[in-house]
Amino acid sequence: MTSLTMIEAAAQRLQGHARLTPLLSSPFLDDIAGRRVLVKPECLQHTGSFKFRGAWSAVSALDPETRSRGVLAFSSGNHAQGVAFAAREHGIPAVIVMPEDAPKLKIDNTRALGAEVVLYDRVNGESREAIGEELSQTRGLTLIRPYDEPQVIAGQGTTGLEIAQQAAEAGVSKADVLVCCGGGGLTSGIALALVAKAPGLRVRPCEPVGFDDVARSLSTGQIEQNPAPSGSICDAILTPAPGDLTFPIMSDLCGPGLSVSDEEALQATAQAFLRLKLVVEPGGAVALASALYRADDIVGDAVIVVISGGNVDPAVFRSALETLT
Amino acid sequence: MTSLTMIEAAAQRLQGHARLTPLLSSPFLDDIAGRRVLVKPECLQHTGSFKFRGAWSAVSALDPETRSRGVLAFSSGNHAQGVAFAAREHGIPAVIVMPEDAPKLKIDNTRALGAEVVLYDRVNGESREAIGEELSQTRGLTLIRPYDEPQVIAGQGTTGLEIAQQAAEAGVSKADVLVCCGGGGLTSGIALALVAKAPGLRVRPCEPVGFDDVARSLSTGQIEQNPAPSGSICDAILTPAPGDLTFPIMSDLCGPGLSVSDEEALQATAQAFLRLKLVVEPGGAVALASALYRADDIVGDAVIVVISGGNVDPAVFRSALETLT
Repeated sequence: MTSLTMIEAAAQRLQGHARLTPLLSSPFLDDIAGRRVLVKPECLQHTGSFKFRGAWSAVSALDPETRSRGVLAFSSGNHAQGVAFAAREHGIPAVIVMPEDAPKLKIDNTRALGAEVVLYDRVNGESREAIGEELSQTRGLTLIRPYDEPQVIAGQGTTGLEIAQQAAEAGVSKADVLVCCGGGGLTSGIALALVAKAPGLRVRPCEPVGFDDVARSLSTGQIEQNPAPSGSICDAILTPAPGDLTFPIMSDLCGPGLSVSDEEALQATAQAFLRLKLVVEPGGAVALASALYRADDIVGDAVIVVISGGNVDPAVFRSALETLT
Repeated sequence: MTSLTMIEAAAQRLQGHARLTPLLSSPFLDDIAGRRVLVKPECLQHTGSFKFRGAWSAVSALDPETRSRGVLAFSSGNHAQGVAFAAREHGIPAVIVMPEDAPKLKIDNTRALGAEVVLYDRVNGESREAIGEELSQTRGLTLIRPYDEPQVIAGQGTTGLEIAQQAAEAGVSKADVLVCCGGGGLTSGIALALVAKAPGLRVRPCEPVGFDDVARSLSTGQIEQNPAPSGSICDAILTPAPGDLTFPIMSDLCGPGLSVSDEEALQATAQAFLRLKLVVEPGGAVALASALYRADDIVGDAVIVVISGGNVDPAVFRSALETLT
């Protein structure tokens, strides 16, 4: 179980390796939201998303002998790149298991970061778990789970330690903190950090409409599934259900969830382009979209927004820019 | 004449008002450049460009009574927004004189930042200087020049103080520092800071091909003009000639200039999108383009790049993204 002590220890291990991302703002966004908007841009983190924090935390927490044999991840997205880069910087092997129909750019990027990519045939029912199990046994690789893993949650929680300090410097001690939420690693990690360091800051998960498993789970008090596995442009944060480790933390500490449409996520991506000069992926923009377009569901003079990532396909980004005209 | 003491005093006045922009990097950019590339993204500064630093420095240096009457600037671009925002944050009036054929978005943005916009008829030869002179006399406004002004150069120089410290933290003590250069305020300010604080870091101005007045002036030892006033997509950094104050500083302290084509500036804008998750305007990308595509003209294991701004029209940004396919 992740604790504040673990988050603070992770912050020590990340020091000089992860980026301390700034806290940004724009008077134009304040005008849209009707309150002060402070933005924590994890798209500027190494590999373009917060996932690097959790990956570094987990890899650096392994005992040296285990670590030297290498790590393994199942991912076609931001977690893959985070694990690959963290492994490379530690000088250890990384094996990433990806579906063979994953976008070529993502496969190429993961390889370029030094990882070995093992493809599997998702369509014909080949099991990534079986492949991973065999790799793990024969090569002694350690599996790094994307969110349901205490050291990963601790790494994501370092974002919360930074928010606590940066919000205080900005004079904000009471506000909702909107976090883009998939499996809940980032959301629960930030919530654990803030309840200890800035208890006036309340975390609220933000999701795409139709994939609001976390909001519904918080509402019913038990883990709820999404009806479909895919179908939103916010691919980076689509997970079937909150995690077994992350859900109890969120249930204890988070306020009600918020959800926005794909169109609103694209509009928020365009506002981040125009007003913050940031490249944000639609899934990474749902918290900003919630701040801008769900203002009536938020209370207080200020709101803090965590942008989770910026690994967006150029064609999707162009479609976001088209919402400006 | 701007001195290190003035730059350090400006840094004190900017504390808590200007952003300390981070120093970013990507292994993918290192691969293209063949050396380590460290990027200082002033597109993340307030109002989307470094101009806010100089504007704040100049406005905050005025004596309170003079300042309270307000400030005046001639600009249709980044300097206008920097002055408008600095004035608003000081609670004083700002009047910006713009050509009436300036892009509507820029006029609207400047007004939205609280400035009064006075339009003049550039085409029929109306003189902005005459308009400014009258406003200055009747209303007691102080003119803030865009670069040939000691306190503006001091403000831009605070970027150099940050680079000196951040480069040291990154273990870089000897490198070329590539700076996007128009009139030379940013370039000369950074050069003054670095010669005192990190003498192994040498500033080199970067310009668009055909508008390399600074490079040619450094080469001949006297102020040279550009043959044409416009005609590059890098509009943010097109100035007819280096300034009377900035040129002697650059001549004393800078290495040879570099120049890149509009196409290369667009390609660098696309790389900043893909690898740094930054929105950069083409003029703000010429230093990155120089690092990536003029590698043979640069020496050393590392290069530092200053991105000057990100106020880019969505249509221009879309054309930059098209260079990726």
